[in-house]
Amino acid sequence: MAPLSLDGSMFGLKDRMKSITANHDIRLEEAPILTPEKGEVLIHIKATGICGSDVHFWKTGQIGELKVLGDCILGHESAGVVVAVGNGVTNVAVADRVAIEPGVPCGKCHCCKSGDYNLCPDVAFAGVYPYDGFLQRFMVHKAEYVFKLPDNMTFSQGALVEPLSVVMHAVDRAPLQFGRGVLILGAGPIGLISLEVARASGATPIVIADVAPQRLEFAKEFVARCKTYLVDIRKTPEENAKEIRKLFGTSEYDAPTKILECTGVESSVITACFAVQRAGQIIVVGVGRPVMNNLPFMHISLAEIDLTFINRYHDTWMAGIRALSEGVIILDSLVTHVFPLEQAVEALN
Amino acid sequence: MAPLSLDGSMFGLKDRMKSITANHDIRLEEAPILTPEKGEVLIHIKATGICGSDVHFWKTGQIGELKVLGDCILGHESAGVVVAVGNGVTNVAVADRVAIEPGVPCGKCHCCKSGDYNLCPDVAFAGVYPYDGFLQRFMVHKAEYVFKLPDNMTFSQGALVEPLSVVMHAVDRAPLQFGRGVLILGAGPIGLISLEVARASGATPIVIADVAPQRLEFAKEFVARCKTYLVDIRKTPEENAKEIRKLFGTSEYDAPTKILECTGVESSVITACFAVQRAGQIIVVGVGRPVMNNLPFMHISLAEIDLTFINRYHDTWMAGIRALSEGVIILDSLVTHVFPLEQAVEALN
Amino acid sequence: MAPLSLDGSMFGLKDRMKSITANHDIRLEEAPILTPEKGEVLIHIKATGICGSDVHFWKTGQIGELKVLGDCILGHESAGVVVAVGNGVTNVAVADRVAIEPGVPCGKCHCCKSGDYNLCPDVAFAGVYPYDGFLQRFMVHKAEYVFKLPDNMTFSQGALVEPLSVVMHAVDRAPLQFGRGVLILGAGPIGLISLEVARASGATPIVIADVAPQRLEFAKEFVARCKTYLVDIRKTPEENAKEIRKLFGTSEYDAPTKILECTGVESSVITACFAVQRAGQIIVVGVGRPVMNNLPFMHISLAEIDLTFINRYHDTWMAGIRALSEGVIILDSLVTHVFPLEQAVEALN
Amino acid sequence: MAPLSLDGSMFGLKDRMKSITANHDIRLEEAPILTPEKGEVLIHIKATGICGSDVHFWKTGQIGELKVLGDCILGHESAGVVVAVGNGVTNVAVADRVAIEPGVPCGKCHCCKSGDYNLCPDVAFAGVYPYDGFLQRFMVHKAEYVFKLPDNMTFSQGALVEPLSVVMHAVDRAPLQFGRGVLILGAGPIGLISLEVARASGATPIVIADVAPQRLEFAKEFVARCKTYLVDIRKTPEENAKEIRKLFGTSEYDAPTKILECTGVESSVITACFAVQRAGQIIVVGVGRPVMNNLPFMHISLAEIDLTFINRYHDTWMAGIRALSEGVIILDSLVTHVFPLEQAVEALN
Repeated sequence: MAPLSLDGSMFGLKDRMKSITANHDIRLEEAPILTPEKGEVLIHIKATGICGSDVHFWKTGQIGELKVLGDCILGHESAGVVVAVGNGVTNVAVADRVAIEPGVPCGKCHCCKSGDYNLCPDVAFAGVYPYDGFLQRFMVHKAEYVFKLPDNMTFSQGALVEPLSVVMHAVDRAPLQFGRGVLILGAGPIGLISLEVARASGATPIVIADVAPQRLEFAKEFVARCKTYLVDIRKTPEENAKEIRKLFGTSEYDAPTKILECTGVESSVITACFAVQRAGQIIVVGVGRPVMNNLPFMHISLAEIDLTFINRYHDTWMAGIRALSEGVIILDSLVTHVFPLEQAVEALN
Repeated sequence: MAPLSLDGSMFGLKDRMKSITANHDIRLEEAPILTPEKGEVLIHIKATGICGSDVHFWKTGQIGELKVLGDCILGHESAGVVVAVGNGVTNVAVADRVAIEPGVPCGKCHCCKSGDYNLCPDVAFAGVYPYDGFLQRFMVHKAEYVFKLPDNMTFSQGALVEPLSVVMHAVDRAPLQFGRGVLILGAGPIGLISLEVARASGATPIVIADVAPQRLEFAKEFVARCKTYLVDIRKTPEENAKEIRKLFGTSEYDAPTKILECTGVESSVITACFAVQRAGQIIVVGVGRPVMNNLPFMHISLAEIDLTFINRYHDTWMAGIRALSEGVIILDSLVTHVFPLEQAVEALN
Repeated sequence: MAPLSLDGSMFGLKDRMKSITANHDIRLEEAPILTPEKGEVLIHIKATGICGSDVHFWKTGQIGELKVLGDCILGHESAGVVVAVGNGVTNVAVADRVAIEPGVPCGKCHCCKSGDYNLCPDVAFAGVYPYDGFLQRFMVHKAEYVFKLPDNMTFSQGALVEPLSVVMHAVDRAPLQFGRGVLILGAGPIGLISLEVARASGATPIVIADVAPQRLEFAKEFVARCKTYLVDIRKTPEENAKEIRKLFGTSEYDAPTKILECTGVESSVITACFAVQRAGQIIVVGVGRPVMNNLPFMHISLAEIDLTFINRYHDTWMAGIRALSEGVIILDSLVTHVFPLEQAVEALN
Repeated sequence: MAPLSLDGSMFGLKDRMKSITANHDIRLEEAPILTPEKGEVLIHIKATGICGSDVHFWKTGQIGELKVLGDCILGHESAGVVVAVGNGVTNVAVADRVAIEPGVPCGKCHCCKSGDYNLCPDVAFAGVYPYDGFLQRFMVHKAEYVFKLPDNMTFSQGALVEPLSVVMHAVDRAPLQFGRGVLILGAGPIGLISLEVARASGATPIVIADVAPQRLEFAKEFVARCKTYLVDIRKTPEENAKEIRKLFGTSEYDAPTKILECTGVESSVITACFAVQRAGQIIVVGVGRPVMNNLPFMHISLAEIDLTFINRYHDTWMAGIRALSEGVIILDSLVTHVFPLEQAVEALN
């Protein structure tokens, strides 16, 4: 059972959301309100988004090596208002509207010291067992990982900095190039944010592919400049890749140099391998099954394709807030539903 | 004396343009029309732009180690129509409207083979002595370096791919990051193209600085999202840098991670050194005097600043054409004046 | 049938070598002696090595998309003496002892112009159908891809520059770091060269793993500083990886940051995934089956592992010759057998 | 006045060492022995090296923006024995022999979180005012920055990890390439360590240059494989560079791709600019005057040379200890003199 405290608000709730607990049951409970210690802040949570990895946790009880072994409050995409600060906090103050980076790394390990704090083995990540998440009314968090929102940003926009950060980390590791083509596989929330980031990064042409026509319609409305490709599941990945390449042009040079794979589905990763240009890079953003089969090994070798993977993000909140606040990207239409926290259980069921 | 043949057109002509020859004299002459050999095309030149490095050649007779030692037709930013093709040409055909990459590298040296063909010591670069440029009616060029223009692009836009390529090469070597700040020093043509590329690449905040208020006004009209800074020449570079940093924010983190230095002026490069964030990168796009003094060496060391330089471009035409054709960037307002070739001498004088 | 002309010499011949033709038959024939044209040289071949990819061709008739569709002289690791030069050749002269880079790229395509000439789709690669290789007495080759040997190098050493180039390209794409650990999977010829290059690059600790104890014994004699691990095929890749990690140390920080996978075998690639440090890089040097299964997808994602692949090499001959000539690495003991060309058929059979 | 406590030992003391205080006076004093708090250790210092930046502090009272404004115990290259540990320390224990990383960054700022903790503006760096250094008998330090020495390493070797770290950070930022040429400018301690690291990294040819013949003799004995060049101070940097290039070979390709500039002297940096290959990289390791003049700006632009700078190091101690312990490099002959701490004042004067 997952205790959810009252009064926050959620958006983007997916109907597949069932449970985060071992017995797949969710209900509302009172949670204690903690006092912030040195370097911490107490936040009144105002908006929390639900994303694909939440769904993954709910449906399977784990993502890779991360397993839900007991009760856990879910939610890791949030914004709120600071209501109390501990000693030594200088970056935010009471009454500040803030976005929250959910992971608090140890700061001492090799990963933390070498700039990869997202890979810290001891990270306390809100919403991943055993660390409670943001689907509660009040939450204590380390002030370093809380970032002030400009007046022109809503709490929903503040919560969106989290999924945006996933995409920002992806393009930090696979930089999009002005005037060069990019393919986005999957038109779910991360795929759509990738699409908007690709547009705002000057990549061109931009092609987005999915198996669902209505998702592609939404994508085309979302970013007019993109081309869409409806994946034909009766075709092989290689055949789909060939069709996708035609949307980029006729020569090897025209094929996309970067592919953002946002589904984590095996056939989609394989499609990426055949679609990308020689010496190109595939960044696998999506998470999927523990094991992948049918990877076209020799093709990847001969074309010297780089396969790059990501796990969350680091150092993205301030940049993400700026990009949203200054209108560099606009993600508002991705927020599809808004529920008050009191209706969380009904909504989830 | 520089022989210019009739009937092409120029734009962006600067009043400082005087001469490209030793005796600083320009006049029109008849030039022979050559026949394209194997792998070559004959192009009817329709538009040729004049840029800062032309001016540099005219005013000083040299840029670094490149010296004008005799008559030379100038012009290296051009577009036109293919009127004849040699054997083996497949990438363009007669009647194709094309943009022209002016430099033809040897293809055999270490630089060419390692992806730096822009650094080829034996490059035949149109408009740089002893290689004639594009300010003539007809021109033979190697077909590999001629690129078809889409129907929706004008010849002027085609000619703009050359200065755009300079900026594209700069950001290839100093990649702008989505949501991260960039400073552009100098609001001349290359600074303005940098500004538009920075906007289209998702950088934010974008600050552009210059000593001339009217240039900054134009910059603000050109890219509404930028902030402008009027350089106070009575202040030191360090003082100007301090003021510029305030436009980005209050912390070290807010300072720009990348600076595109587009003037080549010593005090501007020094300003860049003090404005950039620790571990940041300055890409020096501008060309200036042979020697630079007063570089703040210890500051650069302690802040681990990277100083990166560029010489022209490689592999940018197709991407530049796409970016302009698909409206990723819009540079049309940079074309300030258009002259027929017959009036070249009057215009130049 | 593969025509082999007389009088060259071979080394490292493997007993698995059977045939390179469709009907798996090899015999000696007279080959014509060509005259070098402009930019070409005629070389008297003195030594040709046989490597794993030759074996791969012989056993399967293809490597990935490269297929042997007719007669083809094999051999792509060679050195010899220049006996005639065409017009315009300046880098080598008659009587020069030379090593030969077997691939001649087109020089015009996007891959060639961007520094990836090894990926040129139109490369004429000696020994890969339809281009004849070096197992013949005389051979015409483009002079640009022929490199003078210093007096202190043997022809056998000259031929070794080819497999050395494979490893050099691998470490160009996955740079080894002084003082940081590296794991080499596979102790065949490429694995052993990788081992020696790792030693000479200052990597430490160096662990090499294989399923064959005698190969590990040879490795230990070859590079005394390495540690060896005998892969236990009854264990899973994850279990073997755990054992390998113990040889590096006890913490995540101690695990190897780079892995050179030199077998192309699926279980070995999977072992690499579990052995490499978080944020580490696996460079897959080995070639294997067209398709790979059981890749631990979620583990790779959570650990942000980079999978990098290579196809041949570019721009390595001069550096490889220097490294061998100056004793930076010593590969002589890798040459296991030497046969005169006349005995090629007997030797192969 | 600089209080030095008794009983440690020093090596490599330079006769130029005068004082670290405002009044340029040094004397021995009793220093208090502190108790380690949580996460700290108390170390009995056994060896402390003196390096060029100490000398720089003594002679000038500052290095760039770092200024000595009061009394300060100097010394930042040390090894010793742990004699007490605070709560929560797990990486070392009492009686462990350890090397000490002198800088303790804040762990919270942008620099720390992005992997550049060496650039932390709030670093507490032992031996840099106002933080006391290691020229005292006992020292409390944060345990995270204390690293266990293997049994086969001496304290002197442990202290050498600090200057080695400078070079390791340099080659992390300017990776040396196996088989490619490197030039080292300056044959002082950092230049000599660079020389040994270059040798152990497989770079070739290696040329080291200096103005002092006896330093070059030492360098040649230290690394037999290097070539030496005696800088002729009557020649211009460009002329010296031309002579240096001849030691690498005759073509542009032969010129060094990387230069480790280890003097910080203006004429040496300029020499580097003319010696490096097109598209090469100069890493400026040396520190010098606040301002540099006469930088050959246009040459650097046309050759697209990267100027890279370093400030200290991060994440190098474990790798440095491994490299020394396993004999990948041997630096012992760099320790020229050893003094007991009691003789520090006499020795310094």
